[in-house]
Amino acid sequence: MKQKLFVVKIGGKVIDDDASLKKFLSAFAKLEGSKILVHGGGKLATQIAEQMNIPQQIIEGRRITDEATLKIVTMVYAGYINKNITAQLQAADCNAIGLSGADGNLLQAHKRTNTQHDYGFAGDVDTVNTTFIDQLLQAGVTLVVAPITHDKKGQLLNTNADTIAQELAQTLSKIYETQLIYCFEKSGVLHDIADENSCIASINKNNFQSLIDQGVIYAGMLPKLHNAFAALDRGVYKVVIGKWEQLRNLTQGKSGTMITHE
Amino acid sequence: MKQKLFVVKIGGKVIDDDASLKKFLSAFAKLEGSKILVHGGGKLATQIAEQMNIPQQIIEGRRITDEATLKIVTMVYAGYINKNITAQLQAADCNAIGLSGADGNLLQAHKRTNTQHDYGFAGDVDTVNTTFIDQLLQAGVTLVVAPITHDKKGQLLNTNADTIAQELAQTLSKIYETQLIYCFEKSGVLHDIADENSCIASINKNNFQSLIDQGVIYAGMLPKLHNAFAALDRGVYKVVIGKWEQLRNLTQGKSGTMITHE
Repeated sequence: MKQKLFVVKIGGKVIDDDASLKKFLSAFAKLEGSKILVHGGGKLATQIAEQMNIPQQIIEGRRITDEATLKIVTMVYAGYINKNITAQLQAADCNAIGLSGADGNLLQAHKRTNTQHDYGFAGDVDTVNTTFIDQLLQAGVTLVVAPITHDKKGQLLNTNADTIAQELAQTLSKIYETQLIYCFEKSGVLHDIADENSCIASINKNNFQSLIDQGVIYAGMLPKLHNAFAALDRGVYKVVIGKWEQLRNLTQGKSGTMITHE
Repeated sequence: MKQKLFVVKIGGKVIDDDASLKKFLSAFAKLEGSKILVHGGGKLATQIAEQMNIPQQIIEGRRITDEATLKIVTMVYAGYINKNITAQLQAADCNAIGLSGADGNLLQAHKRTNTQHDYGFAGDVDTVNTTFIDQLLQAGVTLVVAPITHDKKGQLLNTNADTIAQELAQTLSKIYETQLIYCFEKSGVLHDIADENSCIASINKNNFQSLIDQGVIYAGMLPKLHNAFAALDRGVYKVVIGKWEQLRNLTQGKSGTMITHE
């Protein structure tokens, strides 16, 4: 029987607010067993770019990672946020180690090319170093992964944290029974976006299309769910989307939206 | 017989200049056996503080690490510099992993207090996690250590890179035959500061005092040498001070100043 593994992704407001982050990390530290935390960047990178007078280009909701921006996201994601999370987990007696994709060749990627827009130093993941991750997990270490990868030619690359969580969960499913948990501000996929109590308990391939047709699932939630189904197709045991304040319940299927095959 | 280990410290101009850093890392990657690279911060932290309009206080040559400065040094040292070095070593087929003191509880420290000046979030090292370091080294991993520690209570701290190199070398001497190599701009301790060819091949406790009396060793070199002798007293096999461009020769005793007991 495979060992269990949680791959938890956090991003957005919880990272920007010290008290929220502390609360979340306290709950995360208490999860038993093997676990990986993937974090996004929050607003700090944008704030620092503004303070440094580095203009940020956003095309279709995506940040263009020019050279100056890559420097900032490397500093903020792999430096400030990653080390603060790691230090706080250590304080909560969770033996965490903060890593970028370059560390131990954890996540090798290539610079995105041949797209309509030039996204700059944006990386798409090619390989996950499962041997190294497994060694760390078996030594009782919790990984904290920043959304920075590298191309094994010396170039760091900016990579979407949701995608990193998905890639890690998929690849590690070969050796672990992996639950992929996306934490955000809402209690899950909502029937009514204005009503936090309208969380859809589970979505499978059968009701997914009808929820799209009804207009319940749209915009930003669509790619998240497509990615969730792709992760299940590639061996991930469970995908759950829900509120960061309910982490334990999310891991136990008591909260959030569970994405299932059938 | 103990395995050999190199603990190499770099700082200053070599970090600020991409071409120099690349050249140094290429030589470092080629050193056979177990190795740890400890890096300082260079001028980038000061530059970014200036760009962000954060005034830097220096008292008696030491930077005061207030909260805003801690954020910057965490970003620059543990983020930008650490990840760039790691990515470049990976490109040179050296399986590097970049770490701060918080990662895997590598370097636990306490905030410096009871000093004449308040240095802010400056940390003095209490413990080195030798078990974890040994596991990584035995797995063939090269450690790249940023001069940021933590207090195991969630607080990151700014710690002098020379001191970190010394602490690592001393503690690891229990299990490794450790050579501590300080790389800088000069070819070693010079008889005549203006003459790069006047490098003193070796300094021991006997000629140390007479070199001080002659005025050959003074100012910034004094604490470096005191630390070198302290490291030898605590079990370090060899301490060498020399030019970063001559790394291989430094490790082979063919260049630089060797500090020895007798």
